[in-house]
Amino acid sequence: MLKLNNESVTDDQLKELFPDLPAGPLDVYRKKATFDWRRMKLVFDNLTTLKLKNDIWNFMRDNPLFRHQEATPSLDEQRHITTKRMYAIYSQNFIPLTKIGVEPRLFQAEAEALFMFDSSLAVKISLTFRMFSNVIQGSGRSHHYSYIEQSQRGEIGGCFALTEVSHGSNAKGMRTTATYCPDKKQFILHTPDFEAAKFWIGSLGKCATHAIVYAMLISKGKNHGLHTFVVPIRDPKTLKPYPGVTVGDIGEKIGLNGVDNGFVMFNKYHLPKEAALDKFGGVDDNGDYKTPFRDPKKRFGASLGILSGGRVHITSISANYMQKAIVIAIRYSAVRRQFGPDNSSEELPVLEYQQQQIRLVPHLATTFAMRIFCTWFGALHVSITIDNITGGGGGEDAASRGIELHALSCAAKPVCAWSSRDAIQACREATGGHGYLKASALGELRNDNDANCTYEGENSLLLQQTSNWLLTVWPRRHHLTPSDHPLGSLHFLENADHNLTKTCPWTKVEDMMEPANIIEIYKWLSVYSLKTTYEKVSSLKAAGRDNFHAKNESQPYNAVTLSLVYGENFILNHFYKSAADFHEVECRKVLVQLVALYGAFLLEKHLATLYIGGYLSGSQGVLVREAAVRLSTQLAPAAPALADTLAPPDWCLNSLLGHSDGQVYKHLQNIVMTYPGALARPQWWRDVVHWQTYAPSKL
Amino acid sequence: MLKLNNESVTDDQLKELFPDLPAGPLDVYRKKATFDWRRMKLVFDNLTTLKLKNDIWNFMRDNPLFRHQEATPSLDEQRHITTKRMYAIYSQNFIPLTKIGVEPRLFQAEAEALFMFDSSLAVKISLTFRMFSNVIQGSGRSHHYSYIEQSQRGEIGGCFALTEVSHGSNAKGMRTTATYCPDKKQFILHTPDFEAAKFWIGSLGKCATHAIVYAMLISKGKNHGLHTFVVPIRDPKTLKPYPGVTVGDIGEKIGLNGVDNGFVMFNKYHLPKEAALDKFGGVDDNGDYKTPFRDPKKRFGASLGILSGGRVHITSISANYMQKAIVIAIRYSAVRRQFGPDNSSEELPVLEYQQQQIRLVPHLATTFAMRIFCTWFGALHVSITIDNITGGGGGEDAASRGIELHALSCAAKPVCAWSSRDAIQACREATGGHGYLKASALGELRNDNDANCTYEGENSLLLQQTSNWLLTVWPRRHHLTPSDHPLGSLHFLENADHNLTKTCPWTKVEDMMEPANIIEIYKWLSVYSLKTTYEKVSSLKAAGRDNFHAKNESQPYNAVTLSLVYGENFILNHFYKSAADFHEVECRKVLVQLVALYGAFLLEKHLATLYIGGYLSGSQGVLVREAAVRLSTQLAPAAPALADTLAPPDWCLNSLLGHSDGQVYKHLQNIVMTYPGALARPQWWRDVVHWQTYAPSKL
Ligand SMILES: Cc1cc2nc3c(=O)[nH]c(=O)nc-3n(C[C@H](O)[C@H](O)[C@H](O)COP(=O)(O)OP(=O)(O)OC[C@H]3O[C@@H](n4cnc5c(N)ncnc54)[C@H](O)[C@@H]3O)c2cc1C
Ligand SMILES: Cc1cc2nc3c(=O)[nH]c(=O)nc-3n(C[C@H](O)[C@H](O)[C@H](O)COP(=O)(O)OP(=O)(O)OC[C@H]3O[C@@H](n4cnc5c(N)ncnc54)[C@H](O)[C@@H]3O)c2cc1C
Repeated sequence: MLKLNNESVTDDQLKELFPDLPAGPLDVYRKKATFDWRRMKLVFDNLTTLKLKNDIWNFMRDNPLFRHQEATPSLDEQRHITTKRMYAIYSQNFIPLTKIGVEPRLFQAEAEALFMFDSSLAVKISLTFRMFSNVIQGSGRSHHYSYIEQSQRGEIGGCFALTEVSHGSNAKGMRTTATYCPDKKQFILHTPDFEAAKFWIGSLGKCATHAIVYAMLISKGKNHGLHTFVVPIRDPKTLKPYPGVTVGDIGEKIGLNGVDNGFVMFNKYHLPKEAALDKFGGVDDNGDYKTPFRDPKKRFGASLGILSGGRVHITSISANYMQKAIVIAIRYSAVRRQFGPDNSSEELPVLEYQQQQIRLVPHLATTFAMRIFCTWFGALHVSITIDNITGGGGGEDAASRGIELHALSCAAKPVCAWSSRDAIQACREATGGHGYLKASALGELRNDNDANCTYEGENSLLLQQTSNWLLTVWPRRHHLTPSDHPLGSLHFLENADHNLTKTCPWTKVEDMMEPANIIEIYKWLSVYSLKTTYEKVSSLKAAGRDNFHAKNESQPYNAVTLSLVYGENFILNHFYKSAADFHEVECRKVLVQLVALYGAFLLEKHLATLYIGGYLSGSQGVLVREAAVRLSTQLAPAAPALADTLAPPDWCLNSLLGHSDGQVYKHLQNIVMTYPGALARPQWWRDVVHWQTYAPSKL
Repeated sequence: MLKLNNESVTDDQLKELFPDLPAGPLDVYRKKATFDWRRMKLVFDNLTTLKLKNDIWNFMRDNPLFRHQEATPSLDEQRHITTKRMYAIYSQNFIPLTKIGVEPRLFQAEAEALFMFDSSLAVKISLTFRMFSNVIQGSGRSHHYSYIEQSQRGEIGGCFALTEVSHGSNAKGMRTTATYCPDKKQFILHTPDFEAAKFWIGSLGKCATHAIVYAMLISKGKNHGLHTFVVPIRDPKTLKPYPGVTVGDIGEKIGLNGVDNGFVMFNKYHLPKEAALDKFGGVDDNGDYKTPFRDPKKRFGASLGILSGGRVHITSISANYMQKAIVIAIRYSAVRRQFGPDNSSEELPVLEYQQQQIRLVPHLATTFAMRIFCTWFGALHVSITIDNITGGGGGEDAASRGIELHALSCAAKPVCAWSSRDAIQACREATGGHGYLKASALGELRNDNDANCTYEGENSLLLQQTSNWLLTVWPRRHHLTPSDHPLGSLHFLENADHNLTKTCPWTKVEDMMEPANIIEIYKWLSVYSLKTTYEKVSSLKAAGRDNFHAKNESQPYNAVTLSLVYGENFILNHFYKSAADFHEVECRKVLVQLVALYGAFLLEKHLATLYIGGYLSGSQGVLVREAAVRLSTQLAPAAPALADTLAPPDWCLNSLLGHSDGQVYKHLQNIVMTYPGALARPQWWRDVVHWQTYAPSKL
């Protein structure tokens, strides 16, 4: 079901979707490419997803609502236009649920089409419609499903309200209460003070009519912990808040300003008993607490488990941002000329310089790794969710798959968000002055990606989830069976103890350019990181530290690295398999080189640990560095064609530096000459000439 | 002259300038501090600089023009307010030239006061007045000085126009021409096409009346290379451009949007011969070329040499941004509570978590290193400039000091800009959700600091300047005398060959917490990096690569690392000396710990190289990591008081998270409740409720 099945796609089908790119200075590089940039798309897309994206893009292109604005609009205007775009897209119903059942990749393909255009729009749709419905689907019962239907018809707009002013990461510390009142069969929702206000809630600032609210369920004087409620916030007919609800906008953010994040406080606000999403537990009419779980921790886990979809989704968002950034930087580097050999009058494209290559090409390789992994990961998550709803999954395997998925998503989200962060920054710097123009689009990508490091779990804290699980696995390493890790993320533990005794047998740069070898090294590194973290925690406990402190004091250089390496190891292996399996030989060759570069680039950051653990010795580390440089140099000529594979249409990418025609200066001229007021004397010119009227001079 | 001479400063003098900070949740930490946060300021400031900054801040605080605005103003408003603020400050004449002669640190203290408030304002002042005058002072002759006087009186506004659309880094590639016409004794300034338009020119977009323009001087058919001209752009009385000049604004940037960067094209624009700043070379009335330099490269070097002040200045700007970011993140971490031991009802301030400590405290140490180094470096540069003007300097030493200063500033600027980049990013992420509010101020710091990586020389390219020099030094290493490096940056080459044979003798974590040892390791690392880079270049040349290619292909992991290590080594040593020399024992103890942490933090990033070079072996690398963790943990309780040392006044810092009273939630409540329109229904509410009016539904 998760195979792409692309063998039969014809060139004509692809050409119909992707006409030839405009001729221009990028052609020199395009001609050098040994592979077909369109076919290369089939390593992460198939005809169905490509068509969907094209449909969405064509719709946007032809609709004036989706013209990018040049000058940054005011905060209010950004929210307004994003809201209108949301309804414009949503009302088109590009992927009716029935289609997703057949091709789970469609869900993410739609998101990708949106993120490539504008992240606020994509985030807003996902919060208003998808997340709201998903939570109700996951933790509600049949009488709640009418909300889903109303939401599907766009009659109400949802949001997801967990975080409070003073509590985010520590969900158990939330202080909003929902006190059950058996006389009236109502809950009384209350916010004790501003610190307990729900805060950061996306789409609540201006629009949402309903919220999924997390509150402490109190009944008969007892606090049963955090539970979810569907709470009416604003009248869907007037958008006025209901009495008892104080709701507002949290104001400007670093990025994603099209999304109206909001806050809400409840003043003894009455809800019917049916407002509780009580599939996993709740009170009966009398206020007695009932839950299908014996262990209350399990209930809490199950209700938060629904949120793992958000993390999976974010891996893919990060990949989208990287895609855009790297396309922009590679294309610009291929046309920007600066300096040249002493005896030459022609300057070289900066992509020809080794330093520029090592700054960018590894991020290009990473982008392929991410895109391939995230597409698979997203589709996997959708199929699991469908299985759960239709009852197709279940059983032991489903439980351990859930646990593994949690651990993997808690590692993959930080790995992807940080890879994207580093790539965007590298692209920004490597595009020199012009990359600092707003019109380069790189600033906005950075600002938007930043949120990926924070929401749906602060990266560093998510990594603790992963390492906590891995630490429980280590003592069981000799008895693991495939059903302990249905996704295969623990393969690195096969023969763990034996592998740890190995040292690096390779002595030539070429050896370090071989994906299979790099993967072997990563296996060692993964086992080593787990073992040393386990030992660190054990020794702290042996020295008398309790669990809380032992965990806290084994994070830096141990648990944190462990979780990252675990995530990287999975992504690297997945990339290698996808590359090696790819049906087309010319593309495959390049993909395998990208795998090698991604691997060498990752390894380089862990070189010290490889020495510390005794795996590397002498100057073997130089081989890894040299491999990264050589692979970057070898792949540089192919980079612009690889960028073509990754790029959305020009109007969608909307970057001065990233046009597929490579005519940067022409576009620059066009932009600056037509920018509103560019050539005009400022209206306030008198404040320059006659500054002494407001600033008495002491000069 | 560059000593701070702070021994005699009394507590009362300091208290007068810095009253007690407001009581609040930060007090717990403040009470733990073993040192006086006010006295700690004396490691980089003295009474004169502290007073100046206070005067400027008090002026701003009392002037309504300097109220920070909450909502981001439009681009035009940002430029307008920045311009007005510029004149308001400039007209106060806070540091008449006579004062700078006495205390060269004042120059930078003023800049610091401005940067702490708003970077656009600071950049704009420096471009409009300082840089314009400096270039004229440096490369003009006495008949040009009237421009300086007009500028000093604020009658004209300058700018500095080197970069063109298609040429920035490669200054020799500029294509603007100034053709001498002996009949009229005029130059004809001409821009052949848009690609040769001067572009990115700060303060030219809306305001400048005059520009320093770099153009190819052509006379009698011969191109004499890049020369500078003072060019009238706009009429100072009307601010209208002169005929022949097309001047405009380049639009929105990623940051620094208060600065009106602009472009200009000249259409056969006539200039009197006197417009040429021809101290280093120019034509006589007949058009015959004359220069005091025999070697034309030297003339070009001398005219660009004037620009090294810009790089020195940027090191300090970077330090200012770091200062603000780290103050914000440390104060917030000390009051933000999340999670706690299982048996406790109190949550812990997140600053108590080891992972949070290792994420932030090393950047705090780095901030001290930078602040101390940059203050010294700035003052040094000012004294050298004064020496040059008054003829006090000169001689052999002055020449080699110029070369060393160039090399050092080309390394220090990237080191500082990147340290700041990494610190700001760490602070942004470590402040979780609330750090993503615009009101945290961290987003703007990141966007503004970004420019530091690019302007006045793209970081990676500057590093080439440094390594090029070091490579010429290596063969001479046995014969270096102090006059080869008057600033002492080559001390690491003493006994270079012998030192290279050493291996790391230390086996305990405590050893790696000892600054003297870390400095010893850095010495080894510096020599090793130089030697290996030299060998790399030599082997490429031996294999037949010409100079251009040999240099290009020895950048990654070699020349780039070399230059960074050289810069870091200097800053680390300077920090150590300043700390060890500090007159006050309690402050000194903490400073020395900060030195150790800065050093361990730096070393950790070079661990792999230390292994590759055979200096470290076995698991010695763990000692360095463990040292960094322990030092971070030891220093964490002192961090809030250290932040007090670094912090500007609250209204100036202007960060919701960084107030000295630690009342984050109170301020947050205040901000969101009073944000314009926060609680109001949007005016466009009908577009939510009646979306079907503009988006026909297919749902
Ligand atoms: C753009 C955006 C949109 C959002 N949208 C929503 C939404 O729609 N609905 C919603 O409910 N929420 C939303 N949020 C909130 C978001 O989920 C939280 O901000 C996020 O979970 C981080 O929690 P926090 O802010 O409490 O971070 P904190 O926990 O306060 O983190 C601050 C710092 O403390 C550190 N720290 C905390 N605990 C520990 C520990 N035990 N050990 C080590 N370090 C620790 C963290 O690592 C971090 O460095 C949004 C946030 C953003 C930025
Ligand atoms: C905010 C801002 C303000 C500015 N203000 C002014 C001003 O007032 N006046 C003015 O004259 N200019 C100004 N500039 C321009 C600035 O000085 C240049 O942008 C800067 O020098 C970088 O040059 P570039 O843009 O040509 O970069 P490029 O040289 O085009 O750099 C692009 C990429 O190519 C790489 N590259 C180029 N050559 C090589 C090589 N030989 N080897 C390896 N890699 C290479 C670079 O490292 C970089 O990664 C400003 C710029 C900014 C961003």
